[in-house]
Amino acid sequence: MGLLRADGVVYKPVEQIDLGPGSKEFYIKPNVKAPRMTGFLLKIFAWFLETRIIGALLLYILKRNYQMHKLVTNAMLEEPPMFVPLHPFVDLNEQEVKQIDSDASPPERVQQAIKCLPVTLEKSLDDLKSSCFRRWTIADYSRAYSSGEITPKRVAEQFIDAVCESSSPPLLMSFFINYDAEDILRQATESTLRYERGHPISALDGVPIAIKDEIDCSPYPTTGGTKWLPKFRPCTGDACCVMRLRACGAIIVGKTNMHELGAGVSGINPHYGTVRNPYDPNKITGGSSSGSAAVVSAGLCPVALGVDGGGSVRMPASLCGVVGFKPTFGCIPHAGVLPLNWTLGMVGILAGTLEDAFIVYAAISGQLPSHEPATLPPKVHFPLLNSTNPISNIKFAKYGEWFNDCSDEIRICCSNALNLLCQHYKWKTVEVTIPDIQAMFLAHYVTIGSECSTSLSSHLEKLDFAEIGWDVRVALRVCGSFHSKEYMKAQKMRNRQMQIHNNIFAKADVIVAPTTGMTAYSIFEDALKTGELNSINGVALIRYQIAGNFLGLPAVTVPVGYDKAGLPIGLQFIGKPWSEATLMHIAFAMQVLCISDYRKPKVFYDLLHKN
Amino acid sequence: MGLLRADGVVYKPVEQIDLGPGSKEFYIKPNVKAPRMTGFLLKIFAWFLETRIIGALLLYILKRNYQMHKLVTNAMLEEPPMFVPLHPFVDLNEQEVKQIDSDASPPERVQQAIKCLPVTLEKSLDDLKSSCFRRWTIADYSRAYSSGEITPKRVAEQFIDAVCESSSPPLLMSFFINYDAEDILRQATESTLRYERGHPISALDGVPIAIKDEIDCSPYPTTGGTKWLPKFRPCTGDACCVMRLRACGAIIVGKTNMHELGAGVSGINPHYGTVRNPYDPNKITGGSSSGSAAVVSAGLCPVALGVDGGGSVRMPASLCGVVGFKPTFGCIPHAGVLPLNWTLGMVGILAGTLEDAFIVYAAISGQLPSHEPATLPPKVHFPLLNSTNPISNIKFAKYGEWFNDCSDEIRICCSNALNLLCQHYKWKTVEVTIPDIQAMFLAHYVTIGSECSTSLSSHLEKLDFAEIGWDVRVALRVCGSFHSKEYMKAQKMRNRQMQIHNNIFAKADVIVAPTTGMTAYSIFEDALKTGELNSINGVALIRYQIAGNFLGLPAVTVPVGYDKAGLPIGLQFIGKPWSEATLMHIAFAMQVLCISDYRKPKVFYDLLHKN
Repeated sequence: MGLLRADGVVYKPVEQIDLGPGSKEFYIKPNVKAPRMTGFLLKIFAWFLETRIIGALLLYILKRNYQMHKLVTNAMLEEPPMFVPLHPFVDLNEQEVKQIDSDASPPERVQQAIKCLPVTLEKSLDDLKSSCFRRWTIADYSRAYSSGEITPKRVAEQFIDAVCESSSPPLLMSFFINYDAEDILRQATESTLRYERGHPISALDGVPIAIKDEIDCSPYPTTGGTKWLPKFRPCTGDACCVMRLRACGAIIVGKTNMHELGAGVSGINPHYGTVRNPYDPNKITGGSSSGSAAVVSAGLCPVALGVDGGGSVRMPASLCGVVGFKPTFGCIPHAGVLPLNWTLGMVGILAGTLEDAFIVYAAISGQLPSHEPATLPPKVHFPLLNSTNPISNIKFAKYGEWFNDCSDEIRICCSNALNLLCQHYKWKTVEVTIPDIQAMFLAHYVTIGSECSTSLSSHLEKLDFAEIGWDVRVALRVCGSFHSKEYMKAQKMRNRQMQIHNNIFAKADVIVAPTTGMTAYSIFEDALKTGELNSINGVALIRYQIAGNFLGLPAVTVPVGYDKAGLPIGLQFIGKPWSEATLMHIAFAMQVLCISDYRKPKVFYDLLHKN
Repeated sequence: MGLLRADGVVYKPVEQIDLGPGSKEFYIKPNVKAPRMTGFLLKIFAWFLETRIIGALLLYILKRNYQMHKLVTNAMLEEPPMFVPLHPFVDLNEQEVKQIDSDASPPERVQQAIKCLPVTLEKSLDDLKSSCFRRWTIADYSRAYSSGEITPKRVAEQFIDAVCESSSPPLLMSFFINYDAEDILRQATESTLRYERGHPISALDGVPIAIKDEIDCSPYPTTGGTKWLPKFRPCTGDACCVMRLRACGAIIVGKTNMHELGAGVSGINPHYGTVRNPYDPNKITGGSSSGSAAVVSAGLCPVALGVDGGGSVRMPASLCGVVGFKPTFGCIPHAGVLPLNWTLGMVGILAGTLEDAFIVYAAISGQLPSHEPATLPPKVHFPLLNSTNPISNIKFAKYGEWFNDCSDEIRICCSNALNLLCQHYKWKTVEVTIPDIQAMFLAHYVTIGSECSTSLSSHLEKLDFAEIGWDVRVALRVCGSFHSKEYMKAQKMRNRQMQIHNNIFAKADVIVAPTTGMTAYSIFEDALKTGELNSINGVALIRYQIAGNFLGLPAVTVPVGYDKAGLPIGLQFIGKPWSEATLMHIAFAMQVLCISDYRKPKVFYDLLHKN
């Protein structure tokens, strides 16, 4: 880190930092003292925070408690700011990849991705029924539709029934904010006709895909988890990623529930109900792409889209036992996504299997529309997951103190999974030190907070605050409190951490860590109406997420086990920019080793075999 | 502009704006009410501004007066922020250019530039002596050294004498903050030896070049116009641009005076003396590259380097009757320049003629060191100024209301110059409307202020404020007052204005405007010790500068005449990104038409012909 002074840290030049295992850089365990708040206490706190004088004092104390002044505001660091984590494309000479033209159409790209998948997926469903638990994949849907075993229309009907059931007592899973049975059936009917004519558009034809309610998608408003946002920002059409899915024939089945404005990580939404975890409906799903994780976990869709600005895809994926994939910043067009921030968030994919995440990645990534920054590679690398030669000599960077800063069960489960992976493929783990993770967390918070509150500022001025959840009111007040100096110091930190991570990537291919520091925690009655402030849990969930967003790095989480309560645990791999193919190879290898132990959620719908 | 609401402007989408001459977009004449302040009044104002409560109130009133809240802070605009005005290279298919490898060495590039110059410059000095006033150019020095008419050593001696004389009573021109006679003579002796051996490095060999004291340059500290900055930031070597000049054999003759921290535009520096205008020592030079403009104007150097973050090269160039050239953002390596901001300022060139600005541009631009953003073109275009075919069909965009928002003398002089240019070359002027220029000015101020105060914050905390000039104390207090929302709104404005300017550039090749709204104003005794707050004059000077910095556009100012008091007037051309070659062609054409009327400054040193 550097010299700790009374007023602010003086950060060492990056080239002087020892990133090896014996480094003197120390790991700061965030010392979160804020108590859990809900109900009346939360309201009082929000009220005080919103007053001018006492509010300013409270904010000062809050920031001081988190060492914001020391680690960010008054910190001294040499690096110029890096405002946007856009990485020029570098050909990494990855192993076992196939080059795809980045201007191929979405259906062409899907077909290319399918060709990269192992043939084992060609097995008929009957072979699998008897074996261990496994969610139905895109390939399963495609095969069942092509063989006439079931039609998209029938699946759609069963989907609608299932959503009705899951939304009603006793379950009240609150998966969706909006879904339109008529619109779903219309799409399904069209898809069914295509299969009847023998001309499905792609392997995604007829496959139900849910969309986080932060992404524009006709005929729905884009609520961002609020009741008021659509009044100010009507949805005028599909986001680019949704258009691409439609171009592949996918059935867009509705808008999934989310933490209000993405301003929290629990998925407790006072306006649309608390999203419940299919593995245990008394537990949270994590957030903010809560509903997207839950619908995939519950078998309603093989894939859903989320948006990941601070782990919002990977955290709920991990807590709900599914795959969560966030590619390199700028890799998926952002047009039509709520502008809750500009330099952190991007569309991510939640899927039952890595293969399905890959197929949808193939469909929605690719050449950006001309008005976005043209950073995309001329060729995209798809991983040859069907290769008989697994990729070799992979080195994982593991920062022990950080890796182990989680519950015992997660630590043991993730360590075992990593060891298994290394043993099986003769890959290696390199011990490293990643300095100033806590400072990066705070810098990310300043950044996402400043951008979010600026983006919403013109709406908020006109809004009755009673329309906003209490936890989000607190978050907005904190987010809106940052000075331009804090924002810019945060961007200097971003540059510094990017250089540090580049140096880590000179030692290893991929950084490995648990996805979250704890598994899904309990939903208590008192949180349902006001929302909940729960910094201790929040920090534990978000601990391993920041580099993926702040530095724009690709990252993927794979389920690797369960805690004693049967709640899923995820292991995360964080790659260098544009290393999606390698990352998918690794995640796939991890999945192959774990999939036979996958367990069925308590709430699960089998749309392909219901009847 | 858009709907003017009580709280903030709602800006129209760019595609709905009429940029034609009959547009309903209106031009806001900034209504500056702040009185001129110096001496005790200025001290009182600074004291109050630095208090917590009254200071906050004063800041609020100040911002309100400038309509900061309406036009920026509470404005609504759709565009996402553009944080850095880096433009990917586009080959503009410019006329009459020569392609140069961007990795050619500085001396090679200088020689290539020389080959692009008109042969008229090959005339011997004697031919010119009798004709109208003309400063000695790089070619004159080079020829005089090669012919043995004079040696670099002799020039250096005369330079040192001249600096001594200009620094002493009665002149007290305060051109330099630092110069080291021994170091200058050492360089000159080496250069003389090279000429004696018949092997000068390039046409720049032995040419005296002065460096703004914001650019690192051994053996001098980099003061940035302060007394204290070198204590915190010792200069450890040459900036990249200085290294390149040395590689060409140039004699670096010292560090020129500047407005303290570049935080003002008058050049009144309480610590190192007020830089005086060679055309009238009772008038300012403009700033902040005040000394660099003055030494070129006074004939001490054919060229000097400045830094232009808000017109700081072009304004003093215009006021001192020399050429000022600021290329596209990112075109000259920034390594070794004081980081007073990160997204606006860059090295610019002040020269007696456009040809000399071109030669030094050739020497210092070019492929950036690997750690800087790699936006540079693979080929650089040099203008063939010696072409017998002048470039054709140039269209100037002229926004009448803005163009005319200057003194009558400037308006008439600049209009006449433009008409002459258009008539002579059959070029055309297109009337346009550039909306929201005042909003862009404020957004630029928020940006440069936030970045400057963040950059200096860690030093300022440790500093006795008595070491800072009073006008700069006021500026720093205002600069440090911006919220992250204001900074980000400013970046949204940057994106919007970039799109507007792109649309203007679809109608015309170059935007034309006066360089400043007034000529050099008087230096009063009361300002010398405390500095001066003079918003009315400041705003008039900076009026035409902003697009060059905020949008990263290349811009050049050429002297086109004098007011009745004999003070110089400049005309400015602002080009599209990477249109340096066209810009130089146009500026050269303008200079050819005006040069015979150039007048000799009152303070002028003829280093080549003194004896």
